[in-house]
Amino acid sequence: MPPSFAHHLRVRYNECDPQGIVFNANYVTYVDVTLTELWREWFGSYQAFIDQTGIDLVVADLQLRFRGSARFDDELAITLDPQLTSASSVTSTIAIDRGADRLIDGTIRHVCVDARSFAKVPAPALLTAVLRP
Amino acid sequence: MPPSFAHHLRVRYNECDPQGIVFNANYVTYVDVTLTELWREWFGSYQAFIDQTGIDLVVADLQLRFRGSARFDDELAITLDPQLTSASSVTSTIAIDRGADRLIDGTIRHVCVDARSFAKVPAPALLTAVLRP
Amino acid sequence: MPPSFAHHLRVRYNECDPQGIVFNANYVTYVDVTLTELWREWFGSYQAFIDQTGIDLVVADLQLRFRGSARFDDELAITLDPQLTSASSVTSTIAIDRGADRLIDGTIRHVCVDARSFAKVPAPALLTAVLRP
Amino acid sequence: MPPSFAHHLRVRYNECDPQGIVFNANYVTYVDVTLTELWREWFGSYQAFIDQTGIDLVVADLQLRFRGSARFDDELAITLDPQLTSASSVTSTIAIDRGADRLIDGTIRHVCVDARSFAKVPAPALLTAVLRP
Repeated sequence: MPPSFAHHLRVRYNECDPQGIVFNANYVTYVDVTLTELWREWFGSYQAFIDQTGIDLVVADLQLRFRGSARFDDELAITLDPQLTSASSVTSTIAIDRGADRLIDGTIRHVCVDARSFAKVPAPALLTAVLRP
Repeated sequence: MPPSFAHHLRVRYNECDPQGIVFNANYVTYVDVTLTELWREWFGSYQAFIDQTGIDLVVADLQLRFRGSARFDDELAITLDPQLTSASSVTSTIAIDRGADRLIDGTIRHVCVDARSFAKVPAPALLTAVLRP
Repeated sequence: MPPSFAHHLRVRYNECDPQGIVFNANYVTYVDVTLTELWREWFGSYQAFIDQTGIDLVVADLQLRFRGSARFDDELAITLDPQLTSASSVTSTIAIDRGADRLIDGTIRHVCVDARSFAKVPAPALLTAVLRP
Repeated sequence: MPPSFAHHLRVRYNECDPQGIVFNANYVTYVDVTLTELWREWFGSYQAFIDQTGIDLVVADLQLRFRGSARFDDELAITLDPQLTSASSVTSTIAIDRGADRLIDGTIRHVCVDARSFAKVPAPALLTAVLRP
Protein backbone atom coordinates (compact mmCIF):
# COMPACT_ATOMS: atom_id res chain seq x y z
CA MET A 1 0.00 0.00 0.00
CA PRO A 2 1.54 3.32 -1.05
CA PRO A 3 1.76 6.16 1.46
CA SER A 4 -0.94 8.84 1.14
CA PHE A 5 -0.75 12.46 2.26
CA ALA A 6 -3.34 15.24 2.38
CA HIS A 7 -2.71 18.97 2.64
CA HIS A 8 -5.51 21.42 3.38
CA LEU A 9 -5.61 24.98 2.08
CA ARG A 10 -8.06 27.79 1.43
CA VAL A 11 -8.73 29.21 -2.02
CA ARG A 12 -7.40 32.79 -2.28
CA TYR A 13 -9.43 35.52 -3.96
CA ASN A 14 -6.81 36.19 -6.65
CA GLU A 15 -6.81 32.48 -7.62
CA CYS A 16 -10.41 32.81 -8.89
CA ASP A 17 -11.32 34.16 -12.29
CA PRO A 18 -14.32 36.17 -13.56
CA GLN A 19 -16.37 32.94 -13.70
CA GLY A 20 -15.99 33.02 -9.88
CA ILE A 21 -14.07 29.73 -9.84
CA VAL A 22 -10.44 28.75 -9.37
CA PHE A 23 -8.50 29.30 -12.60
CA ASN A 24 -7.30 25.89 -13.85
CA ALA A 25 -3.57 26.56 -13.65
CA ASN A 26 -3.84 27.25 -9.93
CA TYR A 27 -4.70 23.61 -9.18
CA VAL A 28 -1.25 22.72 -10.50
CA THR A 29 0.22 25.13 -7.95
CA TYR A 30 -1.86 23.48 -5.19
CA VAL A 31 -0.29 20.13 -6.13
CA ASP A 32 3.18 21.64 -5.90
CA VAL A 33 2.40 23.16 -2.49
CA THR A 34 1.21 19.75 -1.31
CA LEU A 35 4.40 18.04 -2.45
CA THR A 36 6.37 20.64 -0.46
CA GLU A 37 4.31 19.83 2.64
CA LEU A 38 4.76 16.10 2.07
CA TRP A 39 8.53 16.58 1.82
CA ARG A 40 8.37 18.60 5.09
CA GLU A 41 6.55 15.68 6.73
CA TRP A 42 9.03 13.11 5.42
CA PHE A 43 12.37 14.95 5.32
CA GLY A 44 12.05 18.10 7.46
CA SER A 45 11.72 20.39 4.45
CA TYR A 46 12.15 20.42 0.69
CA GLN A 47 15.52 22.13 1.05
CA ALA A 48 16.65 19.58 3.67
CA PHE A 49 15.96 16.83 1.11
CA ILE A 50 18.07 18.60 -1.51
CA ASP A 51 20.86 19.29 1.00
CA GLN A 52 21.00 15.64 2.10
CA THR A 53 20.73 14.03 -1.34
CA GLY A 54 21.92 16.61 -3.88
CA ILE A 55 18.77 15.66 -5.79
CA ASP A 56 15.84 17.81 -6.92
CA LEU A 57 12.59 16.82 -8.68
CA VAL A 58 11.14 18.15 -11.91
CA VAL A 59 7.70 17.50 -13.37
CA ALA A 60 7.69 15.23 -16.43
CA ASP A 61 3.98 14.42 -16.89
CA LEU A 62 0.74 15.87 -15.65
CA GLN A 63 -2.81 14.65 -16.15
CA LEU A 64 -5.85 16.33 -14.59
CA ARG A 65 -9.56 15.65 -14.89
CA PHE A 66 -11.79 18.52 -13.79
CA ARG A 67 -15.04 17.24 -12.24
CA GLY A 68 -16.11 20.27 -10.24
CA SER A 69 -15.05 23.81 -9.40
CA ALA A 70 -13.69 25.37 -6.24
CA ARG A 71 -14.67 28.91 -5.29
CA PHE A 72 -13.16 31.72 -3.21
CA ASP A 73 -12.60 30.79 0.46
CA ASP A 74 -13.37 27.07 -0.12
CA GLU A 75 -11.29 24.76 2.01
CA LEU A 76 -9.71 22.07 -0.15
CA ALA A 77 -7.94 18.81 0.62
CA ILE A 78 -5.20 17.93 -1.86
CA THR A 79 -4.18 14.28 -1.58
CA LEU A 80 -1.03 12.78 -3.10
CA ASP A 81 -0.29 9.05 -3.31
CA PRO A 82 3.31 8.78 -4.57
CA GLN A 83 4.81 5.54 -5.94
CA LEU A 84 8.17 4.72 -7.44
CA THR A 85 7.34 3.87 -11.07
CA SER A 86 10.87 3.59 -12.47
CA ALA A 87 14.41 4.00 -11.16
CA SER A 88 14.10 7.80 -11.48
CA SER A 89 10.35 8.41 -11.53
CA VAL A 90 7.85 9.11 -8.76
CA THR A 91 4.25 9.03 -9.95
CA SER A 92 1.61 10.44 -7.62
CA THR A 93 -2.13 9.99 -7.81
CA ILE A 94 -3.80 13.37 -7.23
CA ALA A 95 -7.19 14.01 -5.63
CA ILE A 96 -8.56 17.46 -4.84
CA ASP A 97 -11.69 17.44 -2.69
CA ARG A 98 -14.00 19.97 -1.08
CA GLY A 99 -15.61 18.01 1.74
CA ALA A 100 -17.26 14.98 0.15
CA ASP A 101 -17.01 16.43 -3.39
CA ARG A 102 -14.23 15.25 -5.65
CA LEU A 103 -13.28 18.28 -7.77
CA ILE A 104 -10.15 17.04 -9.51
CA ASP A 105 -8.34 13.79 -9.99
CA GLY A 106 -5.22 13.00 -11.91
CA THR A 107 -1.60 11.97 -11.80
CA ILE A 108 1.73 13.75 -11.80
CA ARG A 109 5.09 12.19 -12.58
CA HIS A 110 8.25 13.71 -11.16
CA VAL A 111 11.75 12.76 -12.26
CA CYS A 112 14.77 12.86 -9.94
CA VAL A 113 17.55 15.08 -11.26
CA ASP A 114 20.94 16.21 -10.03
CA ALA A 115 20.23 19.51 -8.25
CA ARG A 116 23.09 21.26 -10.09
CA SER A 117 23.29 19.70 -13.58
CA PHE A 118 19.58 18.77 -13.89
CA ALA A 119 20.68 15.40 -15.33
CA LYS A 120 18.32 12.49 -14.62
CA VAL A 121 19.48 10.33 -11.69
CA PRO A 122 18.02 7.37 -9.77
CA ALA A 123 15.77 8.17 -6.80
CA PRO A 124 17.96 8.41 -3.66
CA ALA A 125 17.74 5.84 -0.84
CA LEU A 126 16.20 8.50 1.43
CA LEU A 127 13.22 8.65 -0.94
CA THR A 128 12.89 5.00 -1.93
CA ALA A 129 12.92 4.07 1.78
CA VAL A 130 9.74 6.09 2.30
CA LEU A 131 8.07 5.06 -0.94
CA ARG A 132 8.56 1.33 -0.33
CA PRO A 133 7.46 0.74 3.23
CA MET B 1 -7.25 18.35 -41.63
CA PRO B 2 -7.96 20.21 -38.38
CA PRO B 3 -7.24 23.93 -38.16
CA SER B 4 -4.02 24.85 -36.38
CA PHE B 5 -3.18 28.12 -34.64
CA ALA B 6 0.00 29.42 -33.06
CA HIS B 7 0.37 32.30 -30.60
CA HIS B 8 3.75 33.76 -29.71
CA LEU B 9 4.60 35.23 -26.32
CA ARG B 10 7.59 36.07 -24.18
CA VAL B 11 8.23 34.47 -20.80
CA ARG B 12 7.83 37.03 -18.00
CA TYR B 13 10.29 37.20 -15.10
CA ASN B 14 7.65 36.44 -12.47
CA GLU B 15 6.64 33.26 -14.34
CA CYS B 16 10.04 31.72 -13.58
CA ASP B 17 10.92 30.02 -10.31
CA PRO B 18 14.17 29.75 -8.33
CA GLN B 19 15.32 26.95 -10.69
CA GLY B 20 15.37 29.76 -13.30
CA ILE B 21 12.72 28.04 -15.44
CA VAL B 22 9.01 28.62 -16.06
CA PHE B 23 6.95 27.23 -13.18
CA ASN B 24 4.81 24.37 -14.52
CA ALA B 25 1.41 25.89 -13.82
CA ASN B 26 2.23 28.87 -16.03
CA TYR B 27 2.22 26.73 -19.17
CA VAL B 28 -1.46 26.07 -18.48
CA THR B 29 -2.00 29.84 -18.49
CA TYR B 30 -0.14 30.11 -21.81
CA VAL B 31 -2.57 27.59 -23.31
CA ASP B 32 -5.53 29.64 -22.06
CA VAL B 33 -4.04 32.84 -23.51
CA THR B 34 -3.62 31.06 -26.84
CA LEU B 35 -7.25 29.91 -26.89
CA THR B 36 -8.28 33.53 -26.30
CA GLU B 37 -6.17 34.62 -29.28
CA LEU B 38 -7.59 31.81 -31.42
CA TRP B 39 -11.14 32.93 -30.52
CA ARG B 40 -10.14 36.51 -31.47
CA GLU B 41 -8.95 35.24 -34.87
CA TRP B 42 -12.12 33.21 -35.44
CA PHE B 43 -14.87 35.21 -33.73
CA GLY B 44 -13.55 38.76 -33.13
CA SER B 45 -12.98 38.11 -29.41
CA TYR B 46 -13.78 35.62 -26.68
CA GLN B 47 -16.56 37.89 -25.40
CA ALA B 48 -18.01 38.26 -28.93
CA PHE B 49 -18.31 34.46 -29.08
CA ILE B 50 -20.18 34.35 -25.75
CA ASP B 51 -22.42 37.26 -26.77
CA GLN B 52 -23.36 35.60 -30.08
CA THR B 53 -23.86 32.06 -28.78
CA GLY B 54 -24.61 32.31 -25.04
CA ILE B 55 -22.01 29.58 -24.66
CA ASP B 56 -18.78 29.50 -22.69
CA LEU B 57 -16.07 26.80 -22.45
CA VAL B 58 -14.67 25.09 -19.38
CA VAL B 59 -11.68 22.78 -19.14
CA ALA B 60 -12.54 19.11 -18.55
CA ASP B 61 -9.23 17.31 -19.16
CA LEU B 62 -5.62 18.35 -19.36
CA GLN B 63 -2.56 16.30 -20.23
CA LEU B 64 0.94 17.77 -20.47
CA ARG B 65 4.32 16.17 -21.12
CA PHE B 66 7.31 18.31 -20.16
CA ARG B 67 10.27 17.70 -22.49
CA GLY B 68 12.23 20.89 -21.90
CA SER B 69 12.20 24.12 -19.93
CA ALA B 70 11.61 27.69 -20.96
CA ARG B 71 13.54 30.52 -19.29
CA PHE B 72 13.00 34.23 -18.67
CA ASP B 73 12.62 36.27 -21.88
CA ASP B 74 12.38 33.19 -24.12
CA GLU B 75 10.01 33.62 -27.02
CA LEU B 76 7.59 30.69 -27.19
CA ALA B 77 5.16 29.47 -29.82
CA ILE B 78 2.04 27.84 -28.39
CA THR B 79 0.17 25.83 -31.01
CA LEU B 80 -3.40 24.53 -30.64
CA ASP B 81 -5.06 22.06 -33.00
CA PRO B 82 -8.71 21.90 -31.92
CA GLN B 83 -11.12 19.16 -33.05
CA LEU B 84 -14.72 18.38 -32.20
CA THR B 85 -14.49 15.10 -30.29
CA SER B 86 -18.10 14.81 -29.11
CA ALA B 87 -21.28 16.89 -29.41
CA SER B 88 -20.07 19.15 -26.57
CA SER B 89 -16.31 18.59 -26.50
CA VAL B 90 -13.45 20.34 -28.24
CA THR B 91 -10.10 18.57 -27.82
CA SER B 92 -6.97 20.48 -28.77
CA THR B 93 -3.52 19.12 -29.33
CA ILE B 94 -1.00 21.38 -27.57
CA ALA B 95 2.59 22.08 -28.61
CA ILE B 96 4.86 24.61 -26.93
CA ASP B 97 8.08 25.30 -28.80
CA ARG B 98 11.12 27.56 -28.46
CA GLY B 99 12.47 27.80 -31.95
CA ALA B 100 13.12 24.24 -33.11
CA ASP B 101 12.88 22.82 -29.57
CA ARG B 102 9.67 21.15 -28.48
CA LEU B 103 9.29 21.97 -24.76
CA ILE B 104 5.79 20.69 -24.07
CA ASP B 105 3.19 18.61 -25.80
CA GLY B 106 -0.21 17.54 -24.64
CA THR B 107 -3.94 17.81 -25.07
CA ILE B 108 -6.70 19.85 -23.48
CA ARG B 109 -10.40 19.08 -23.67
CA HIS B 110 -12.93 21.90 -23.29
CA VAL B 111 -16.66 21.36 -22.82
CA CYS B 112 -19.30 23.79 -24.07
CA VAL B 113 -21.56 25.07 -21.29
CA ASP B 114 -24.42 27.53 -21.03
CA ALA B 115 -22.70 30.81 -20.08
CA ARG B 116 -25.21 31.43 -17.28
CA SER B 117 -26.15 28.01 -15.86
CA PHE B 118 -22.88 26.24 -16.66
CA ALA B 119 -24.92 23.23 -17.86
CA LYS B 120 -23.29 21.17 -20.63
CA VAL B 121 -24.64 22.04 -24.10
CA PRO B 122 -23.78 21.02 -27.68
CA ALA B 123 -21.11 23.07 -29.45
CA PRO B 124 -22.84 25.95 -31.30
CA ALA B 125 -22.98 26.12 -35.12
CA LEU B 126 -20.59 29.10 -35.05
CA LEU B 127 -17.92 26.82 -33.57
CA THR B 128 -18.62 23.59 -35.44
CA ALA B 129 -18.51 25.55 -38.73
CA VAL B 130 -14.89 26.47 -38.02
CA LEU B 131 -13.87 23.13 -36.59
CA ARG B 132 -15.22 21.15 -39.57
CA PRO B 133 -13.90 22.93 -42.62
CA MET C 1 -5.78 52.38 19.74
CA PRO C 2 -6.57 50.78 16.40
CA PRO C 3 -7.14 47.02 16.22
CA SER C 4 -4.18 45.01 14.88
CA PHE C 5 -4.28 41.62 13.20
CA ALA C 6 -1.55 39.24 12.06
CA HIS C 7 -1.86 36.37 9.60
CA HIS C 8 0.89 33.79 9.15
CA LEU C 9 1.64 32.03 5.89
CA ARG C 10 4.44 30.17 4.17
CA VAL C 11 6.07 31.35 0.95
CA ARG C 12 5.20 29.02 -1.94
CA TYR C 13 7.84 27.94 -4.45
CA ASN C 14 6.03 29.50 -7.43
CA GLU C 15 5.93 32.87 -5.64
CA CYS C 16 9.73 33.11 -5.85
CA ASP C 17 11.58 34.32 -8.92
CA PRO C 18 14.98 33.41 -10.41
CA GLN C 19 16.67 35.69 -7.85
CA GLY C 20 15.37 33.11 -5.33
CA ILE C 21 13.21 35.69 -3.55
CA VAL C 22 9.49 36.44 -3.47
CA PHE C 23 8.48 38.39 -6.58
CA ASN C 24 7.27 41.84 -5.46
CA ALA C 25 3.71 41.59 -6.70
CA ASN C 26 3.12 38.56 -4.48
CA TYR C 27 3.42 40.65 -1.31
CA VAL C 28 0.32 42.53 -2.50
CA THR C 29 -1.48 39.19 -2.66
CA TYR C 30 -0.32 38.37 0.89
CA VAL C 31 -1.92 41.61 2.08
CA ASP C 32 -5.20 40.67 0.38
CA VAL C 33 -5.12 37.20 1.94
CA THR C 34 -4.58 38.81 5.34
CA LEU C 35 -7.57 41.14 4.91
CA THR C 36 -9.69 38.09 4.09
CA GLU C 37 -8.53 36.42 7.30
CA LEU C 38 -9.20 39.60 9.30
CA TRP C 39 -12.73 39.76 7.88
CA ARG C 40 -13.17 36.08 8.86
CA GLU C 41 -12.11 36.95 12.41
CA TRP C 42 -14.43 39.97 12.59
CA PHE C 43 -17.44 39.01 10.47
CA GLY C 44 -17.36 35.23 9.95
CA SER C 45 -16.09 35.52 6.38
CA TYR C 46 -15.57 38.06 3.62
CA GLN C 47 -18.75 36.87 1.91
CA ALA C 48 -20.72 37.11 5.18
CA PHE C 49 -19.71 40.79 5.39
CA ILE C 50 -20.93 41.44 1.83
CA ASP C 51 -24.16 39.52 2.46
CA GLN C 52 -24.93 41.49 5.63
CA THR C 53 -23.96 44.95 4.36
CA GLY C 54 -24.23 44.87 0.55
CA ILE C 55 -20.82 46.52 0.62
CA ASP C 56 -17.51 45.42 -0.88
CA LEU C 57 -14.04 47.00 -0.66
CA VAL C 58 -11.71 48.04 -3.46
CA VAL C 59 -8.10 49.16 -3.21
CA ALA C 60 -7.55 52.89 -3.82
CA ASP C 61 -3.95 53.44 -2.70
CA LEU C 62 -0.98 51.22 -2.02
CA GLN C 63 2.44 52.10 -0.68
CA LEU C 64 5.15 49.53 0.02
CA ARG C 65 8.74 49.87 1.19
CA PHE C 66 10.91 46.80 0.60
CA ARG C 67 13.54 46.41 3.33
CA GLY C 68 14.35 42.72 2.96
CA SER C 69 13.46 39.66 0.92
CA ALA C 70 11.54 36.54 1.77
CA ARG C 71 12.60 33.20 0.32
CA PHE C 72 10.90 29.87 -0.47
CA ASP C 73 9.37 28.18 2.59
CA ASP C 74 9.89 31.21 4.86
CA GLU C 75 7.12 31.69 7.38
CA LEU C 76 5.88 35.27 7.29
CA ALA C 77 3.68 37.33 9.58
CA ILE C 78 1.54 39.90 7.75
CA THR C 79 0.14 42.50 10.13
CA LEU C 80 -2.67 44.95 9.31
CA ASP C 81 -3.69 47.90 11.47
CA PRO C 82 -6.87 49.29 9.89
CA GLN C 83 -8.29 52.72 10.72
CA LEU C 84 -11.25 54.68 9.39
CA THR C 85 -9.62 57.62 7.61
CA SER C 86 -12.71 59.11 5.95
CA ALA C 87 -16.41 58.30 5.73
CA SER C 88 -15.67 55.67 3.04
CA SER C 89 -11.98 54.88 3.52
CA VAL C 90 -10.19 52.30 5.60
CA THR C 91 -6.42 52.79 5.70
CA SER C 92 -4.32 49.93 7.05
CA THR C 93 -0.72 50.03 8.13
CA ILE C 94 1.08 46.99 6.68
CA ALA C 95 4.01 45.12 8.20
CA ILE C 96 5.48 41.92 6.79
CA ASP C 97 7.96 40.20 9.08
CA ARG C 98 10.05 37.03 9.11
CA GLY C 99 10.72 36.42 12.76
CA ALA C 100 12.40 39.56 14.08
CA ASP C 101 13.18 40.89 10.57
CA ARG C 102 10.95 43.55 9.09
CA LEU C 103 10.82 42.81 5.33
CA ILE C 104 8.12 45.21 4.18
CA ASP C 105 6.18 48.09 5.59
CA GLY C 106 3.56 50.25 3.98
CA THR C 107 -0.05 51.28 3.88
CA ILE C 108 -3.09 50.29 1.86
CA ARG C 109 -6.29 52.31 1.54
CA HIS C 110 -9.55 50.52 0.75
CA VAL C 111 -12.74 52.31 -0.24
CA CYS C 112 -16.21 50.97 0.57
CA VAL C 113 -18.35 50.49 -2.53
CA ASP C 114 -21.82 49.18 -3.26
CA ALA C 115 -21.24 45.49 -4.04
CA ARG C 116 -23.40 45.71 -7.18
CA SER C 117 -22.88 49.18 -8.64
CA PHE C 118 -19.31 49.72 -7.33
CA ALA C 119 -20.33 53.28 -6.36
CA LYS C 120 -18.51 54.73 -3.34
CA VAL C 121 -20.58 54.47 -0.12
CA PRO C 122 -19.91 55.22 3.56
CA ALA C 123 -18.40 52.41 5.65
CA PRO C 124 -21.26 50.37 7.15
CA ALA C 125 -21.98 50.36 10.91
CA LEU C 126 -20.81 46.74 11.11
CA LEU C 127 -17.34 47.91 10.07
CA THR C 128 -17.13 51.24 11.92
CA ALA C 129 -18.18 49.44 15.12
CA VAL C 130 -15.05 47.30 14.92
CA LEU C 131 -12.73 50.05 13.74
CA ARG C 132 -13.73 52.44 16.56
CA PRO C 133 -13.60 50.38 19.71
CA MET D 1 13.30 65.96 -19.91
CA PRO D 2 13.41 62.36 -18.71
CA PRO D 3 13.01 59.57 -21.25
CA SER D 4 9.53 58.01 -21.39
CA PHE D 5 8.62 54.52 -22.57
CA ALA D 6 5.27 52.81 -23.11
CA HIS D 7 4.61 49.09 -23.40
CA HIS D 8 1.26 47.73 -24.58
CA LEU D 9 -0.23 44.46 -23.40
CA ARG D 10 -3.57 42.70 -23.18
CA VAL D 11 -5.17 41.67 -19.90
CA ARG D 12 -5.22 37.87 -19.54
CA TYR D 13 -8.28 36.06 -18.23
CA ASN D 14 -6.46 34.59 -15.23
CA GLU D 15 -5.33 38.07 -14.16
CA CYS D 16 -8.94 39.04 -13.44
CA ASP D 17 -10.76 38.19 -10.23
CA PRO D 18 -14.40 37.39 -9.44
CA GLN D 19 -15.21 41.15 -9.51
CA GLY D 20 -14.34 40.82 -13.24
CA ILE D 21 -11.43 43.25 -12.92
CA VAL D 22 -7.65 42.89 -12.86
CA PHE D 23 -6.50 41.79 -9.40
CA ASN D 24 -4.37 44.60 -7.91
CA ALA D 25 -1.13 42.67 -7.58
CA ASN D 26 -1.08 42.03 -11.32
CA TYR D 27 -0.51 45.71 -12.10
CA VAL D 28 2.81 45.37 -10.27
CA THR D 29 3.68 42.56 -12.67
CA TYR D 30 2.73 44.75 -15.64
CA VAL D 31 5.20 47.38 -14.40
CA ASP D 32 7.94 44.74 -14.18
CA VAL D 33 7.18 43.50 -17.70
CA THR D 34 7.41 47.09 -18.95
CA LEU D 35 10.82 47.61 -17.31
CA THR D 36 12.01 44.45 -19.08
CA GLU D 37 10.82 45.85 -22.42
CA LEU D 38 12.46 49.21 -21.69
CA TRP D 39 15.74 47.45 -20.93
CA ARG D 40 15.37 45.54 -24.24
CA GLU D 41 14.92 48.87 -26.06
CA TRP D 42 17.91 50.45 -24.34
CA PHE D 43 20.36 47.57 -23.80
CA GLY D 44 19.28 44.67 -26.05
CA SER D 45 17.76 42.71 -23.17
CA TYR D 46 17.60 42.64 -19.39
CA GLN D 47 20.20 39.85 -19.33
CA ALA D 48 22.49 41.79 -21.69
CA PHE D 49 22.46 44.67 -19.20
CA ILE D 50 23.43 42.33 -16.33
CA ASP D 51 26.11 40.66 -18.46
CA GLN D 52 27.68 44.00 -19.41
CA THR D 53 27.49 45.69 -16.00
CA GLY D 54 27.33 42.94 -13.40
CA ILE D 55 24.47 44.95 -11.92
CA ASP D 56 20.86 43.98 -11.27
CA LEU D 57 17.95 46.08 -9.98
CA VAL D 58 15.68 45.42 -7.03
CA VAL D 59 12.50 47.25 -6.04
CA ALA D 60 12.85 49.48 -2.97
CA ASP D 61 9.63 51.53 -3.00
CA LEU D 62 6.29 51.25 -4.73
CA GLN D 63 3.34 53.62 -4.70
CA LEU D 64 0.18 53.07 -6.72
CA ARG D 65 -3.08 55.01 -6.92
CA PHE D 66 -5.99 53.07 -8.41
CA ARG D 67 -8.34 55.35 -10.36
CA GLY D 68 -10.09 52.83 -12.57
CA SER D 69 -10.21 49.11 -13.33
CA ALA D 70 -9.04 47.11 -16.31
CA ARG D 71 -11.04 44.10 -17.48
CA PHE D 72 -10.32 40.88 -19.41
CA ASP D 73 -8.96 41.48 -22.93
CA ASP D 74 -8.47 45.24 -22.38
CA GLU D 75 -5.44 46.63 -24.13
CA LEU D 76 -3.35 48.68 -21.70
CA ALA D 77 -0.47 51.11 -22.13
CA ILE D 78 2.03 51.04 -19.27
CA THR D 79 4.28 54.08 -19.30
CA LEU D 80 7.50 54.47 -17.31
CA ASP D 81 9.45 57.69 -16.89
CA PRO D 82 12.70 56.74 -15.14
CA GLN D 83 15.01 59.29 -13.49
CA LEU D 84 18.21 58.93 -11.51
CA THR D 85 17.20 60.10 -8.02
CA SER D 86 20.37 59.16 -6.13
CA ALA D 87 23.70 57.53 -6.94
CA SER D 88 22.06 54.08 -6.76
CA SER D 89 18.36 54.81 -7.26
CA VAL D 90 16.20 54.96 -10.35
CA THR D 91 12.72 56.31 -9.69
CA SER D 92 10.11 55.85 -12.42
CA THR D 93 6.78 57.57 -12.74
CA ILE D 94 4.14 54.96 -13.63
CA ALA D 95 1.00 55.49 -15.70
CA ILE D 96 -1.36 52.72 -16.78
CA ASP D 97 -3.94 53.77 -19.33
CA ARG D 98 -6.74 52.16 -21.34
CA GLY D 99 -7.16 54.48 -24.30
CA ALA D 100 -7.86 57.93 -22.87
CA ASP D 101 -8.63 56.57 -19.37
CA ARG D 102 -5.95 56.78 -16.72
CA LEU D 103 -6.42 53.66 -14.57
CA ILE D 104 -3.35 53.79 -12.37
CA ASP D 105 -0.61 56.21 -11.57
CA GLY D 106 2.29 55.91 -9.19
CA THR D 107 6.02 55.62 -8.77
CA ILE D 108 8.49 52.79 -8.35
CA ARG D 109 12.04 53.13 -7.05
CA HIS D 110 14.66 50.56 -8.05
CA VAL D 111 18.06 50.27 -6.45
CA CYS D 112 21.15 49.06 -8.32
CA VAL D 113 22.77 46.04 -6.67
CA ASP D 114 25.71 43.80 -7.42
CA ALA D 115 24.15 40.90 -9.37
CA ARG D 116 25.94 38.32 -7.20
CA SER D 117 26.15 39.80 -3.69
CA PHE D 118 23.00 41.97 -3.90
CA ALA D 119 24.97 44.77 -2.21
CA LYS D 120 23.92 48.31 -3.16
CA VAL D 121 26.15 49.85 -5.85
CA PRO D 122 26.09 53.09 -7.89
CA ALA D 123 24.15 53.03 -11.16
CA PRO D 124 26.54 51.99 -13.97
CA ALA D 125 27.61 54.40 -16.71
CA LEU D 126 25.59 52.38 -19.25
CA LEU D 127 22.45 53.34 -17.33
CA THR D 128 23.26 56.91 -16.32
CA ALA D 129 24.15 57.67 -19.95
CA VAL D 130 20.58 56.86 -20.97
CA LEU D 131 18.92 58.47 -17.98
CA ARG D 132 20.77 61.80 -18.43
CA PRO D 133 20.38 62.59 -22.09
